[in-house]
Amino acid sequence: MKEKLTIVKVGGKIVEEPETLAALLRDFSSIDGYKMLVHGGGRSATKVAAQLGIETTMVDGRRVTDTEMLNVVTMVYGGLVNKNIVAGLQSNGINALGMTGADMNIIRSEKRPIKTVDYGWVGDVKEVNGAALASLIKSGVVPVIAPLTHDKAGHMLNTNADTMAGECAKGLAEIFDVHLVFCFEKAGVLRDENDDNSVVTEIDRATYAQLLEDGIVSGGMIPKLDNAFEAISSGVSEVIITKASALNDLSLGSHLK
Amino acid sequence: MKEKLTIVKVGGKIVEEPETLAALLRDFSSIDGYKMLVHGGGRSATKVAAQLGIETTMVDGRRVTDTEMLNVVTMVYGGLVNKNIVAGLQSNGINALGMTGADMNIIRSEKRPIKTVDYGWVGDVKEVNGAALASLIKSGVVPVIAPLTHDKAGHMLNTNADTMAGECAKGLAEIFDVHLVFCFEKAGVLRDENDDNSVVTEIDRATYAQLLEDGIVSGGMIPKLDNAFEAISSGVSEVIITKASALNDLSLGSHLK
Repeated sequence: MKEKLTIVKVGGKIVEEPETLAALLRDFSSIDGYKMLVHGGGRSATKVAAQLGIETTMVDGRRVTDTEMLNVVTMVYGGLVNKNIVAGLQSNGINALGMTGADMNIIRSEKRPIKTVDYGWVGDVKEVNGAALASLIKSGVVPVIAPLTHDKAGHMLNTNADTMAGECAKGLAEIFDVHLVFCFEKAGVLRDENDDNSVVTEIDRATYAQLLEDGIVSGGMIPKLDNAFEAISSGVSEVIITKASALNDLSLGSHLK
Repeated sequence: MKEKLTIVKVGGKIVEEPETLAALLRDFSSIDGYKMLVHGGGRSATKVAAQLGIETTMVDGRRVTDTEMLNVVTMVYGGLVNKNIVAGLQSNGINALGMTGADMNIIRSEKRPIKTVDYGWVGDVKEVNGAALASLIKSGVVPVIAPLTHDKAGHMLNTNADTMAGECAKGLAEIFDVHLVFCFEKAGVLRDENDDNSVVTEIDRATYAQLLEDGIVSGGMIPKLDNAFEAISSGVSEVIITKASALNDLSLGSHLK
């Protein structure tokens, strides 16, 4: 039987504020068994860029990453945000190791081809080195992954954290019983978007089709749930959508199977 | 018999310029056997700090590190400089892993006590986890270490790169036959400071005493050589002082034994 691995993805907002970060580190540390964290950091990157006089341009919610912006995200995601999380987890007794995709070549990507938009130094994930990650995890290490990859030709690439979490989950599903947790601003997939008590607790493909038909899942939630079901098709046991503040009780939130 | 490990320390100047960095990565990659890199990055930190409107204060060559400056060095050393080196080494086929002392708790330090100067968030190394580092190295990983440590209580600490290289060498000397290489601006310890052909090639304690007496070693070189001999007393096989551009031939430079 495969051993359980919990992969948690948290957005920038949670890891950038000292209070929410402290709560996250405490709750994440208390998760039993093997675990791994994938984090964002976009707000800090935008803030540091502004302080450096570099303008942030977003297209369809994605950051356009010229050379100057690549330096900013490499500093902020790989340095500031990542190392503060690592130091915090170490103080909780968790043997954290901060990584980007370049470190131990765990995630290789390719620079996104220019179609209608030139996103610049942005990477599309091509390969996850599940064996290297699994070897670290089984030795007791807790990888803390910044949303950066590399092209194996010497360039760092800015990479979407949701995608990285999903690709890591898929890349590790052969080795572990993977539970992938996305921390959202809301308590899960809600029947009424203004009511955190209206969480749809179990979602299978039939339920999802119905939620789509009823218009309960719409807009930006559609690609997120599509990606979740794609991960499940690739062997991930379960995808949980929950609030970061509910990370101490993973029976809450929406469970996709 | 212990296997050979070469630990190379390079200053910021070398890793911050694309041309010298490319040469360094090529030469470092060609070193046979187990290896590890410790890097600086002070010039980039000073530059980024200035762009952010943060003034750099140095006392006795050491950076005073208030909270804002700690954020800068965490970004620059742990993110920008470290990840560019890692991506560069990966493109050369070297399985690099960027680390600070916080990652896997490899180097714990304590905030320097305030005596005449308050250096702020600066760490004095207290403990190197040689077993964790050795396990990575023996698995084929090449650690690339940024000059940052942690206090195991959640704080990152700015730490001198020379000291970190020396402490890592000592912490690994029980496990490996450690050769510690300091890359300087000059070709080694010079009899005539203006002549790179006047390298003192072999230096033992007797030679060192004579060099001190003759005034050939003076000023800032004294603490560096004292630290080198301290490392040798702690089991390090050899300390080499050479030019970064001579890293492809470690028979050059000054060899301290």
